[in-house]
Amino acid sequence: MFKQFVYDIGTKVYFGPIDKSSLGQEITRYGHKLFFIYQGDFIKQLGIYDLVISAGKEYGFEIVEFTKIQPNPRHSDVQEGIDLCRQEQCDVILVAGGGSAIDSAKAIASGVLIDAPIWDVVLGKYPVENSLPLLTISTVSATGSEMNFGAIISNLETKDKLGLRKPSQRPKATFLNPEYTYSVPQFQTACGSADILCHTLETYFSSDNCMFMLDTFMEGLVRTVIQYAPIAYTQPDNYEARANLMWAAPWAINDFLRYDKENNWTMHPIEHEISAYYDITHGLGLAIIMPRYLRHIIDEKSLKRFRNLGINAFGLSCENDDITLAEKTIEAIEAFCYEQLHLESHLSSLGIDNRYFDEMAAKLASDHGYFTSGYRKLSKQDIVQILNECL
Amino acid sequence: MFKQFVYDIGTKVYFGPIDKSSLGQEITRYGHKLFFIYQGDFIKQLGIYDLVISAGKEYGFEIVEFTKIQPNPRHSDVQEGIDLCRQEQCDVILVAGGGSAIDSAKAIASGVLIDAPIWDVVLGKYPVENSLPLLTISTVSATGSEMNFGAIISNLETKDKLGLRKPSQRPKATFLNPEYTYSVPQFQTACGSADILCHTLETYFSSDNCMFMLDTFMEGLVRTVIQYAPIAYTQPDNYEARANLMWAAPWAINDFLRYDKENNWTMHPIEHEISAYYDITHGLGLAIIMPRYLRHIIDEKSLKRFRNLGINAFGLSCENDDITLAEKTIEAIEAFCYEQLHLESHLSSLGIDNRYFDEMAAKLASDHGYFTSGYRKLSKQDIVQILNECL
Repeated sequence: MFKQFVYDIGTKVYFGPIDKSSLGQEITRYGHKLFFIYQGDFIKQLGIYDLVISAGKEYGFEIVEFTKIQPNPRHSDVQEGIDLCRQEQCDVILVAGGGSAIDSAKAIASGVLIDAPIWDVVLGKYPVENSLPLLTISTVSATGSEMNFGAIISNLETKDKLGLRKPSQRPKATFLNPEYTYSVPQFQTACGSADILCHTLETYFSSDNCMFMLDTFMEGLVRTVIQYAPIAYTQPDNYEARANLMWAAPWAINDFLRYDKENNWTMHPIEHEISAYYDITHGLGLAIIMPRYLRHIIDEKSLKRFRNLGINAFGLSCENDDITLAEKTIEAIEAFCYEQLHLESHLSSLGIDNRYFDEMAAKLASDHGYFTSGYRKLSKQDIVQILNECL
Repeated sequence: MFKQFVYDIGTKVYFGPIDKSSLGQEITRYGHKLFFIYQGDFIKQLGIYDLVISAGKEYGFEIVEFTKIQPNPRHSDVQEGIDLCRQEQCDVILVAGGGSAIDSAKAIASGVLIDAPIWDVVLGKYPVENSLPLLTISTVSATGSEMNFGAIISNLETKDKLGLRKPSQRPKATFLNPEYTYSVPQFQTACGSADILCHTLETYFSSDNCMFMLDTFMEGLVRTVIQYAPIAYTQPDNYEARANLMWAAPWAINDFLRYDKENNWTMHPIEHEISAYYDITHGLGLAIIMPRYLRHIIDEKSLKRFRNLGINAFGLSCENDDITLAEKTIEAIEAFCYEQLHLESHLSSLGIDNRYFDEMAAKLASDHGYFTSGYRKLSKQDIVQILNECL
């Protein structure tokens, strides 16, 4: 029996080349003074900057720019954005960029309406009921932040990387132009694809008893990523590959697939510990953790899910026994990440050693020595072991 | 290359047992005087009627009831509904029932705002810009009308069955309680499942070049229907089966799967001719047409789609050659409809003969003797041949 759920995903998505009138109409539907967040020269090179400025002139909205965005977005930068947005009294936000930019924009959209330091908001000390209306132009197929309401914010001082998930942060409209992703470098294409795959697998392995229909969609997303990520990697301007990845990214994590189950993610919390300490690229961290974690959770209950995943997503023969299918499925994920997408397969190659593993594991195993909010209850020792296997 | 599209599906879905406060809040979010459309005693037996009345008392909205709904909803009944709704100055509509009730409610929601006979509105003589806000409680897993903006209305005088598709008709909120479908009779469960399958296949065979990700989702929907319809047929109170069918129904036809392609449906237009003449159950007509039509469209281009469908949705071996895979896929659909769901396999068993086939085909082949809006251009003779094969 599935639990009750409320499906509520109202983001309007414009897919394909952006039409200036659609952009102008969506912005002026929500406000008159735009807080325009973007990161990097590539937003100008892609023509997005000029498009927004031009829409502003034509549709008569003012524009305040903010560009202080870094990968693994910092609470201190977000605070600066909030202060500027509030001071300028902007009433609608547009963000152009990848997951870090969009996550920053979400935290700004919420923080600007609350008279408190943003890190306290992230820590849950203040309720978030409303956020400024947010529009996004996504330029990377990865985090799926463009269609969900989650943001991940890092505090480098406390080495914390925490989620701020508020329904009011879900973008009102999102513009997805696959051509904008042609210039995403190979490494980022690989990391983004590993991220999409991992989002899907986190949800797939969130419960042992899910709605079959959603299982089939998740298997379809895995098929999509493993089919098209290698093509996008070697042929960066392949529209079909970029379009499939760009539409798969939000659906892997816009909540649709997990409404029928608990949100028991494990790989992301582990990766967030690593990147909070070492500031590595999120998708790369996930690619390293995925196979180690999946091997760790092979048990009598999960074998059925591995079996379905192996057969339906990776095309493995149903004549394999369950254990073999689980192992071959994990090997297929390794081949995808490390051979086809050429991602590093070991944390040690990134200059990471085990000195903080105990500290990271202790943070995760905060429930009397256990991590209890994931698919399987993990002890602190389990987590240290998984981390050691990643070395 | 896919065409540009705008994804815009804002229907909020409450899945599971209905909570009176959610119902009351959704209704009063949109209006104060409710036009409550329902069909048949079973709405009272299911407790839906009492729930709505009780919500009205608690949340302070007035209720006007309308119950004149028939299968293959008639324009004359819809007109009565419009007149009453207008006279009573209702400002929000709630419909409880299956596709016929929901389609009627959509036409009423639009017609009440236009000072013209509803059949002229269906014929496109008047633009539909707005509709009264519509909420639905679906009691049958079939047409998917609960999450899309289409309505099919019949005119028995002119023997026409036409679509009224207006974005403003998309329900604002939909309540899906799988338990309400426990009492759906076997025949209706079978017809509804055939309908879901056919919606998926219409879209799957709308184009030879679709977005792979959406193909995988459609294959997943087919897997879901063929897995759970036979279970729901034999175990009417199997929650897992009813829930999967209930969530599959709207996704098969809420537009998500066809945003990347033309809307080139063929089986539905043919079935609408049959049921306009003979008033048979829509899903039964589709079940009879499906295999005949699919055999008719086997060609060099479609073989690739049949191959993917056979392997990924019906679990056929990839070692079969393309022609064999297409034939086995169609045989699997026949076995599903006629053996597992015990639906009639021939129009002649329903007392239908060929006397109007020429007239029906002529109506469809209205473009200089051809039906040109489908997946394949069909001549009038092609359509007569398909109909004859259905006999």
